[in-house]
Amino acid sequence: MNAIKDSVHDYIALGSVAAALIDTPAFQRLRHIKQLSTVRLVYPSASHTRFEHSLGVYHLADRALDHLAVGEMDADHVRAAALLHDVGHGPYGHQTEEVIRRHTGKDHDEVGELLYEVGLAEVLESEGLDPDRVAALIDGQGELGALVSGELDVDRMDYLVRDAHHTGVPYGTIDHGRLVRELRLCDGKLVLAEGNVPTAESLLLARTLMDGIVYRHHVSRIAGAMLERAAEDLLEHVDIDTFRRMADHDLLVSLREHVPELGRRIEQRDLYKRSVWAGLDRVPEAVTELAYEDIRATEREIADIADVPERAVVLDIPSRPTIKESQARVVVNGVVQRLENASELVPALRATQRAGWRMGVYAPERSRDAVRAAATDVLGLP
Amino acid sequence: MNAIKDSVHDYIALGSVAAALIDTPAFQRLRHIKQLSTVRLVYPSASHTRFEHSLGVYHLADRALDHLAVGEMDADHVRAAALLHDVGHGPYGHQTEEVIRRHTGKDHDEVGELLYEVGLAEVLESEGLDPDRVAALIDGQGELGALVSGELDVDRMDYLVRDAHHTGVPYGTIDHGRLVRELRLCDGKLVLAEGNVPTAESLLLARTLMDGIVYRHHVSRIAGAMLERAAEDLLEHVDIDTFRRMADHDLLVSLREHVPELGRRIEQRDLYKRSVWAGLDRVPEAVTELAYEDIRATEREIADIADVPERAVVLDIPSRPTIKESQARVVVNGVVQRLENASELVPALRATQRAGWRMGVYAPERSRDAVRAAATDVLGLP
Amino acid sequence: MNAIKDSVHDYIALGSVAAALIDTPAFQRLRHIKQLSTVRLVYPSASHTRFEHSLGVYHLADRALDHLAVGEMDADHVRAAALLHDVGHGPYGHQTEEVIRRHTGKDHDEVGELLYEVGLAEVLESEGLDPDRVAALIDGQGELGALVSGELDVDRMDYLVRDAHHTGVPYGTIDHGRLVRELRLCDGKLVLAEGNVPTAESLLLARTLMDGIVYRHHVSRIAGAMLERAAEDLLEHVDIDTFRRMADHDLLVSLREHVPELGRRIEQRDLYKRSVWAGLDRVPEAVTELAYEDIRATEREIADIADVPERAVVLDIPSRPTIKESQARVVVNGVVQRLENASELVPALRATQRAGWRMGVYAPERSRDAVRAAATDVLGLP
Amino acid sequence: MNAIKDSVHDYIALGSVAAALIDTPAFQRLRHIKQLSTVRLVYPSASHTRFEHSLGVYHLADRALDHLAVGEMDADHVRAAALLHDVGHGPYGHQTEEVIRRHTGKDHDEVGELLYEVGLAEVLESEGLDPDRVAALIDGQGELGALVSGELDVDRMDYLVRDAHHTGVPYGTIDHGRLVRELRLCDGKLVLAEGNVPTAESLLLARTLMDGIVYRHHVSRIAGAMLERAAEDLLEHVDIDTFRRMADHDLLVSLREHVPELGRRIEQRDLYKRSVWAGLDRVPEAVTELAYEDIRATEREIADIADVPERAVVLDIPSRPTIKESQARVVVNGVVQRLENASELVPALRATQRAGWRMGVYAPERSRDAVRAAATDVLGLP
Repeated sequence: MNAIKDSVHDYIALGSVAAALIDTPAFQRLRHIKQLSTVRLVYPSASHTRFEHSLGVYHLADRALDHLAVGEMDADHVRAAALLHDVGHGPYGHQTEEVIRRHTGKDHDEVGELLYEVGLAEVLESEGLDPDRVAALIDGQGELGALVSGELDVDRMDYLVRDAHHTGVPYGTIDHGRLVRELRLCDGKLVLAEGNVPTAESLLLARTLMDGIVYRHHVSRIAGAMLERAAEDLLEHVDIDTFRRMADHDLLVSLREHVPELGRRIEQRDLYKRSVWAGLDRVPEAVTELAYEDIRATEREIADIADVPERAVVLDIPSRPTIKESQARVVVNGVVQRLENASELVPALRATQRAGWRMGVYAPERSRDAVRAAATDVLGLP
Repeated sequence: MNAIKDSVHDYIALGSVAAALIDTPAFQRLRHIKQLSTVRLVYPSASHTRFEHSLGVYHLADRALDHLAVGEMDADHVRAAALLHDVGHGPYGHQTEEVIRRHTGKDHDEVGELLYEVGLAEVLESEGLDPDRVAALIDGQGELGALVSGELDVDRMDYLVRDAHHTGVPYGTIDHGRLVRELRLCDGKLVLAEGNVPTAESLLLARTLMDGIVYRHHVSRIAGAMLERAAEDLLEHVDIDTFRRMADHDLLVSLREHVPELGRRIEQRDLYKRSVWAGLDRVPEAVTELAYEDIRATEREIADIADVPERAVVLDIPSRPTIKESQARVVVNGVVQRLENASELVPALRATQRAGWRMGVYAPERSRDAVRAAATDVLGLP
Repeated sequence: MNAIKDSVHDYIALGSVAAALIDTPAFQRLRHIKQLSTVRLVYPSASHTRFEHSLGVYHLADRALDHLAVGEMDADHVRAAALLHDVGHGPYGHQTEEVIRRHTGKDHDEVGELLYEVGLAEVLESEGLDPDRVAALIDGQGELGALVSGELDVDRMDYLVRDAHHTGVPYGTIDHGRLVRELRLCDGKLVLAEGNVPTAESLLLARTLMDGIVYRHHVSRIAGAMLERAAEDLLEHVDIDTFRRMADHDLLVSLREHVPELGRRIEQRDLYKRSVWAGLDRVPEAVTELAYEDIRATEREIADIADVPERAVVLDIPSRPTIKESQARVVVNGVVQRLENASELVPALRATQRAGWRMGVYAPERSRDAVRAAATDVLGLP
Repeated sequence: MNAIKDSVHDYIALGSVAAALIDTPAFQRLRHIKQLSTVRLVYPSASHTRFEHSLGVYHLADRALDHLAVGEMDADHVRAAALLHDVGHGPYGHQTEEVIRRHTGKDHDEVGELLYEVGLAEVLESEGLDPDRVAALIDGQGELGALVSGELDVDRMDYLVRDAHHTGVPYGTIDHGRLVRELRLCDGKLVLAEGNVPTAESLLLARTLMDGIVYRHHVSRIAGAMLERAAEDLLEHVDIDTFRRMADHDLLVSLREHVPELGRRIEQRDLYKRSVWAGLDRVPEAVTELAYEDIRATEREIADIADVPERAVVLDIPSRPTIKESQARVVVNGVVQRLENASELVPALRATQRAGWRMGVYAPERSRDAVRAAATDVLGLP
């Protein structure tokens, strides 16, 4: 059996299905999509890709299956889904997810058609697997889908540890060895065995700390918001199907051609600054719920008042924070419970995430003050 | 300048004061006192000593002083205090702290007299330092004492990271590099600079997770309670001054001679089992507040009813959990605040620690059921 | 002082010169040039960039300067040179070095003019530094130049450790902490202090092992040779000055446009295979010394005989191995010596490298046998 | 299946045989024997024990067996032997091996009788295993014995990596993941599969570097020689069977009672200094071959001339270096060869080890010069 050396899990042994899938252009493309997109503008060591992450998720799924009573055919489908769970991502991963959703109505884990379009379905079938079943698992359907995409999925176990390794920020370093050993299937649900409330809590804590310090770092958010804006402009020149199959380098070059000012700024890390950076206590609720078109209109209004070009104002309103992991199931005194009902920490982590929420208005350094004044006015900030 | 290779901080450079202190018998004794005493019965890799930990604390103090505006004389005293902060420990460290306190009235960080008794004062004076001032710093007095023993001390920064490294449990891996960079002296108080609420929270989270999974693991607690009981018996044969200056190996051999049954069990990890393991919801409040003499009387009563020898019942009632780190000071919007007032997490972590509190009654396997019945009755458990 | 988090050296503190240099487009470009170019086709975690490596080299230079008696002005120049030592690299780093040398006559460390062309000289001057002196240091001139580019330079200390961290292959993990502590300036030469022959040997061993297992892995060499060939073809469409200032993503996109067949193969890791893989014992000496034009003519001749397109034959003749580190100076019994005169290992490592030398002839899988037959004939292999 | 957390290999899963063996006093004793004995006087983090190392060897044996075609009964015996391979060690491991050999004629891996004496044979039999077969495997007999004790045994794979982890010296960090994957049984011999000459060389290099920098560090050798001398004196008070079953703490306390001067010095790291430190070029061949009784006589003669007490002179003559790993078998072009015939490095590493050989004469600091003069004369040094 072949094996690939990984800096996180050491050797990852590949079965024949995995080897065949990896050799496709659709999977090789993941070599060119960075796992943390704009985060590496803050943490320069974080250049890792969805290719290595996908191998890691495959590996952890394989390990978890050792401890679950699952038939070999089911296991083969789960392993394939784990490996392919990110093939639906566009360039720069999560940073273009919203754009793609607006233009196609699809999330990155809805890959039912995509598997056929990019030739992966054919490979799966030639290995005796059902592409539709793999797609359903990627979408988190069924008890085994929860292992690929759910509150206790191996996706988050890998990315937390891997992002910690590559950024150098230790908080993501969960005990994934224990997590995969303690997963069980119980009445059709994926649960953590007795005695693992702290194990589940540690997953939640790791996510919350990494969120604040890494994933939502303001520099990464600024670059991400600029990128999303630039991507929308790019879609006036490039069709959405071409766009969503781009890799990171395609997007960078394409932006430089069609959206040169923003493209250059992103490439050279010559970023906008924060004109406004406000928490939920300062932002009117109506503002937090603005739809996409309204956001664009608001940006134009602010630009107009501040007397700057439209592209010099970027309004970044993140969704309200949620903690998916709080729905994880744990066995406590023999009874399966949601983590949020078994842990004192869940409400506090929710509050912590709410307290860390920030709306941003970003602008070039020279327009910073003018934009702040206009935005405060337009958005009705105190 | 001399340097010692450390597995956590790489090279630790030693000034002349440190070099002189390290070469004393009182400091070399720390080579023979394990950092985690009975924890290594659960995590076999955790054999590290207070000697290496003390070097680590010295190193982090030295690093933190780079970022604090402190005179060289003050800094010399702080570094000496950091290095010597654990010389007051008895054998098996925290496990004999209660015993020593009962017999001497002193905590391990009250070393004012000890420094003179063991020859360290002489060395400090010959290096131009004031032993009493070093003792006061070890006791946490003054704004710089807070760096050695306080809510944000370098002691906890080192032990969390070091215990994680040696146990293999990742949760203690805090970002100590950031913590020592962000400490400031502000109006006579040690604080974390603006923007570090999550940094302070991470310290708290690390401590809470390590508490549950490592420091208060039930196997370690059983062995610790057996050891404390055995130590009390030993003190009928050995005087307290000899006792408190023992190292781990002296205690093991001494126990084998004078308290053979418990001594052998501890040495060979042939431990008692949990007869009772009950949380705050099950234990009457009066029981949680029993004084030492009452605990011993209760043990005798349980043993009597269960018809087992007195030493076959060990009642282990930990103190109510506290989170010292919640008192750490952080700067938020220019104002110094206690962490508990700036973080949503503190109350939840308190609740988590309360929920994790357990009283234990331990007994040899064969007496387990008899002791459970008797203890339930005597302690008034539901 | 600002600091950047690095996954290898933790926090890297930046002085004002460094901060100003990092903010230039010429330095930001290094974010888009991978440190190990085609090696990541073998070790998927190795996506790290010359940006983070340059920060690491800056950090180690800074540390080494702590132990060398050097004036502050000299130190500033050395730190700037360490930071900028890789700005002269073309896309895909060493893989296009030969191509660029053929077309411009310049190596990547001859940056005297480049610093002016890309605006770095201006920044250096505004910080009070002399660009020509920085360029000379990058080129390894003078006793301090040896710290930036020489047998004991901090460049190789960083890349060995960093490449080990990111590939997961442990052999590069040298004791860089010790190396930077033990460097001395002695009669105008950079040397390792007494007692460090094993330290120097460890550097050599690390390089030799990483060479065989990582840097010269055959899959990386195949992709690299394909890339070099494709780059030559590209230069019929793109001028050399544009080419050498490209970043990795520019090159990938440009290849896809102008050299589509090879471009696609490199991007999708659909690589040629080894038709011939022969050591020095099988390859006639004249072949090992073929000049570039002769290599191209030989490829054409092989393609002609094998009846395949010209681009389907890639002849890869590496230069004879050298071990620069063997010239490192070490103090032995008070006398400065070359490592090769103080270590029994040097000749053996030379022999090991000679034994590991391989010439390759690469071709698409379907043409493998035809090309092997033709190449054996044309190259006069046994 | 039960699992133990290890700081090197993460979770180590235990089968029922292993669980039963671990619970014996004879195995628990290994918790009290440090892996690196006196090395921790140089590297203070290196307090790890033969208990955790034995678990690590068990784990690597288990992994290697996954890749070897071996029956389940054979595998059970190999796993048991791996776990128990160090139960024959006396206190302070290798440091008392010579003493024990002189008094019993037995090496630490001759455990045929010992297994019966300490109750392990009984446990093995109750689990259906043959104690004599386990003892033969520990002694390295047969093709599978080579996995437990041989040129490519899992013992050295574990100790190199573990000692690197705990000392902080990186050179032992071999790629054990690859080594255990590439072992094969070939015509009754344990070999490394094709393409692994560098893998085998890396094992050799790691051992050679760790030897010089860690295992044979002069401070550790001084303490070790003092300990061996003290152990001989102790055996006038304690019988050899008691002695060899002591753990480290027993020995320390026993020395303090019966050999107080040396005992105190070892415990407090108040070590002798090097009076003489001479390589093979300076030491007459006859001296390098002195038998034990002659060494003691020579010490007395030196002490007499230097006019110091007998115990103030310790003569330390190590055996000639050998490189067991050079006999490892590797497959090269389909043929099994000894590594020394397939690698250019082996002779150089032999030469390096010869060049690193040192004879030492140690004495208290105040007697250093007198002893040097006397020793130079008595030993006929130039």
